Amino acid sequence: MLYRLWTWLVGPPLPTQEAAHARLNKIRALAAFSPDALSSIAYANQEIFLGLVAMGSLGLSYSFPIGLGITSLLAVVAISYYQTIHAYPSGGGSYIVARENLGELPGLVAGGALLIDYVLTAAVSLTAGVEAIASAFPFLWSYRVEAALFLLAVITLINLRGVKEAGTVMSLPVYLFLFTYLGMLAFGLIRALLEGPGDLSVVAPAAIEPLSLFLILRAFASGSTALTGVEAISNGVPAFRKPESHNAGRTLIVMALLMGALFLGSLGLTQYFAVVAGPQETILSALARRLVGSGPVYYLVQTSTLLILTVAANTSFADFPRVASILARDGYLPRQLSNLGDRLVFGNGMLLLAGDTTLLVVLFGGDSHLLVPLFAVGAFMAFTLSQSGMVVHWRRKNGPGWQVKSLLNGFGALVTGTMVMVVVVSKFTHGAWITLLLIPSLVWSFYQIKNHYRRVAEQLSLHGLPPSLQPVPRLRLVVPVSGVHRATIEAINYARALSDKITAVYIEIEPGSGEKLRARWKQWFPDITLVVEPSPYRSVISPLLEFLDRTDREHNDGTLAALVLPEIVPARGWQGLLHNQTAWLIKTTLLYRRRSQGYQRVIIDVPYHLKK
Amino acid sequence: MLYRLWTWLVGPPLPTQEAAHARLNKIRALAAFSPDALSSIAYANQEIFLGLVAMGSLGLSYSFPIGLGITSLLAVVAISYYQTIHAYPSGGGSYIVARENLGELPGLVAGGALLIDYVLTAAVSLTAGVEAIASAFPFLWSYRVEAALFLLAVITLINLRGVKEAGTVMSLPVYLFLFTYLGMLAFGLIRALLEGPGDLSVVAPAAIEPLSLFLILRAFASGSTALTGVEAISNGVPAFRKPESHNAGRTLIVMALLMGALFLGSLGLTQYFAVVAGPQETILSALARRLVGSGPVYYLVQTSTLLILTVAANTSFADFPRVASILARDGYLPRQLSNLGDRLVFGNGMLLLAGDTTLLVVLFGGDSHLLVPLFAVGAFMAFTLSQSGMVVHWRRKNGPGWQVKSLLNGFGALVTGTMVMVVVVSKFTHGAWITLLLIPSLVWSFYQIKNHYRRVAEQLSLHGLPPSLQPVPRLRLVVPVSGVHRATIEAINYARALSDKITAVYIEIEPGSGEKLRARWKQWFPDITLVVEPSPYRSVISPLLEFLDRTDREHNDGTLAALVLPEIVPARGWQGLLHNQTAWLIKTTLLYRRRSQGYQRVIIDVPYHLKK
Repeated sequence: MLYRLWTWLVGPPLPTQEAAHARLNKIRALAAFSPDALSSIAYANQEIFLGLVAMGSLGLSYSFPIGLGITSLLAVVAISYYQTIHAYPSGGGSYIVARENLGELPGLVAGGALLIDYVLTAAVSLTAGVEAIASAFPFLWSYRVEAALFLLAVITLINLRGVKEAGTVMSLPVYLFLFTYLGMLAFGLIRALLEGPGDLSVVAPAAIEPLSLFLILRAFASGSTALTGVEAISNGVPAFRKPESHNAGRTLIVMALLMGALFLGSLGLTQYFAVVAGPQETILSALARRLVGSGPVYYLVQTSTLLILTVAANTSFADFPRVASILARDGYLPRQLSNLGDRLVFGNGMLLLAGDTTLLVVLFGGDSHLLVPLFAVGAFMAFTLSQSGMVVHWRRKNGPGWQVKSLLNGFGALVTGTMVMVVVVSKFTHGAWITLLLIPSLVWSFYQIKNHYRRVAEQLSLHGLPPSLQPVPRLRLVVPVSGVHRATIEAINYARALSDKITAVYIEIEPGSGEKLRARWKQWFPDITLVVEPSPYRSVISPLLEFLDRTDREHNDGTLAALVLPEIVPARGWQGLLHNQTAWLIKTTLLYRRRSQGYQRVIIDVPYHLKK
Repeated sequence: MLYRLWTWLVGPPLPTQEAAHARLNKIRALAAFSPDALSSIAYANQEIFLGLVAMGSLGLSYSFPIGLGITSLLAVVAISYYQTIHAYPSGGGSYIVARENLGELPGLVAGGALLIDYVLTAAVSLTAGVEAIASAFPFLWSYRVEAALFLLAVITLINLRGVKEAGTVMSLPVYLFLFTYLGMLAFGLIRALLEGPGDLSVVAPAAIEPLSLFLILRAFASGSTALTGVEAISNGVPAFRKPESHNAGRTLIVMALLMGALFLGSLGLTQYFAVVAGPQETILSALARRLVGSGPVYYLVQTSTLLILTVAANTSFADFPRVASILARDGYLPRQLSNLGDRLVFGNGMLLLAGDTTLLVVLFGGDSHLLVPLFAVGAFMAFTLSQSGMVVHWRRKNGPGWQVKSLLNGFGALVTGTMVMVVVVSKFTHGAWITLLLIPSLVWSFYQIKNHYRRVAEQLSLHGLPPSLQPVPRLRLVVPVSGVHRATIEAINYARALSDKITAVYIEIEPGSGEKLRARWKQWFPDITLVVEPSPYRSVISPLLEFLDRTDREHNDGTLAALVLPEIVPARGWQGLLHNQTAWLIKTTLLYRRRSQGYQRVIIDVPYHLKK
């Protein structure tokens, strides 16, 4: 029944041969890879505003300069990745580039940073999206956690259904967002030329902290989350039509230009018109209200913001499971993460991502502002490692003009590396410490897991084992019985078909019951020994285990007796509550002993099915 | 480890022969059986006050008359049970008396009513106790649920440790309560004679409802919860010293007199001094403050109230598991409830009671006033059935003076039966409907469970089966393998020791992997057939089950092939997360199929233990 519900939700299983990938033209590719990058202006703007507003109107006058700084960063990062795209036409994720060029540890650090980054992308995008729509509908403000989790559930399901459905749904919101935002900003520019600037000193709340370089740097660090997602295209080069690298490179340039325009445009207009937001509104929402009023166009803008942020969260559902599956295939993560599910997607990875995101959204109360400080560290760390890897790559390849290419990527690495420092120092107490703790612990786990798989392989290996093996001697079987009834007969008959060394054992809880049973036993099974074990403490398990251990010691032939368990299976689940579940208890206890004591006793489970 | 924690909490197991019962003298017996009855004045007073205060001072002037009515009821019920004690010296609980004299259905109704009653005794006593102490320490008022659950946890643990410890702890609070309350009331009586009455019309809040017979009747019905617990002694006659019935009867009379004195004394003084309580105080607390001031004596009174109410909740831990175990032994409840646990107590019944009580306390927000309406219905229903049963008992026995005895119990049945009506009608919308729904559903479950056990016995019975049985033919074994490694060798060796009809099956998820395996297989197991089954949907389970069903059909010898499962057992629990758990998945799926389709396939589980 559960299975049927699941199939209804995610669709019927797909056969393996359907796993062919459709190539994307540039229009669809832009929609597929850009949402994360484009949508990050939503929270980046918000972070810059929140970072500066504490310093009053004087602080807010630094918005546009900070925006210019971040846009320059964007240019550096985009150029660096443009080179990566051409160097790795088969897809150059940070993990692959770092691992291939810098070695295992840097690769794993990049991998861990990426995984954290993807979870945060999902969490921040969803909460920021909910904040955008809650700015329009204030009653939603107190249901931010629920709303974010609802959206998460929807995109999880869409993604579990598989890539094809996911692809078609996603194009629309991206172009809707570009259309409404570029339109709004152009309209705003016209109004700006006609109306003249607003006065920040009139509308900004009073400064509660003095202007300081540290606080401006912190606002800059927070705003730099705008850059997350720029690397997406370099991961997905093989999805482009031929010539892949050429098309991907062009798309990256278009995306970077669009991002720059949106980011500078919105920041510039906000400062020009002296727009300020209250506590239950985002700064972009306040800007939209100022530019287009509170009518239907405003609601369209907020809805398109919510939609693109949701689509951005969705990109994590492509990226996280893919990177996790690569790490799992290399043995650094549980191998279930590399299983292609019923619907040809990495379903386990998606569920893991959904679980982690839920945890973050709930722990941080659905507040994107609390989540952002965790965010930039991982992204810039992955950038830095990837760019450093590229430097090594060019030098090794030693192709024409490798020095220039190396220099460009080296500059990228330097800039993003500096950004790691800036973010860590300025946001450390705000939450960056969490990411700084998480990355090493993830890397440590990667090593532990890899070690475990290596040890398992060693222990299972047949290396040095001769192909001719002595079979184990005829097995001794022990059948615990609760009386003489049909389930007992079934179990004894099976035991007879398997071996002729059979002992039945009865655990006597009520004194005297053993003697009664012995009389009946003689009548039905005269040839099988029945041992009656007293149980002064009324437990079935301990006397049974002691009996098994004792007989093994007595026989002392190096083998353990196998346990033949007569198991009465009720016709319906609820009826299980009416039985003592002794068979289940025995199996569970043995499982535990197996784990803790290496107890390799074979269990032969003989079910007897009740029909009503 | 869990087991060790458990042993530390409840003590080491006790052997069966220690299950002898110490007989109680009258002093200890009173302490053992009266707390429920005596303590009920705490919530009965409160209910009468809350029921009347809505009608203002005029309403409150009915407190003492209502008290007189309830005390007369008490006399009737006590006389009825005095007779039961002499008729059933081996213990005459309502279930036994009703079942023996009136038949199965009335017995089960009484049993169901009693079980509900015991859960409510625990829930109401604990919440009322917390309210008593929160009246003294108001900050506790907002932690009522947590405090009640804490007390519940403590008495659950004490009871799980076993009867002896429970007995000694309980005497003290009862006599402390009697001492402080009788002293306080006597002191109050003296002050009443010296000081003269208070004026209700001055202190009572304004009436928010007009005086009405219905509301007075409702207050009377609520107050009648004072009677719950009177039947306790009649259940426990065998625990008294010889002559049991004589001693038990005397104790009952003493208890009834004490109850009457406490109840009438407290109600009378409350009305005489015109005591009124605020929203975060109980009326008994207000009375105590009026009589002895807010000094240490007041705190002693409130503490002793909390203690006796806790001890009253504790009596449920003796009664509920006992009645449940009798019902379980008769086949009306899961038989686990009749298992004597490690500590010679009905531990499962105690845990069930603790669980149900937790549920009630949480659902009703720890408010005794919301719980009380559910309460009296069950108690009076059990009273009525028990008294009616006694009428039949006397007539059947036909001893000297049976008509008088019959008449007395008949009058008791009539009075308590009327009370059922009164309570149901006046408290229906306040929560009595819940109990009215619960009792029939419990009775329905009793019948379902009984039916199930009867059908199981029929299906397991050997009736008509000849003692000479044909053994099943030599078994066919199927070994699913994931490759050639040590766990495979272990499983194949076991299979070889059990049978010579062995087939290995490999589920091929990655196309082509089957051919590679076949080559290695030939080298290691040349004599065993390997079947490669393709799995286009990448599932292990379905192709395996289809293969098993197909081979069974092909052989068509009336038997199912047994499944030999090579199971790799990791050295530590967390490592399980790193494996696909295919063996576990196969077992779970088969378990489910067993339930739903009567699938009696034998599973032979061959563990291979990893050492690191």
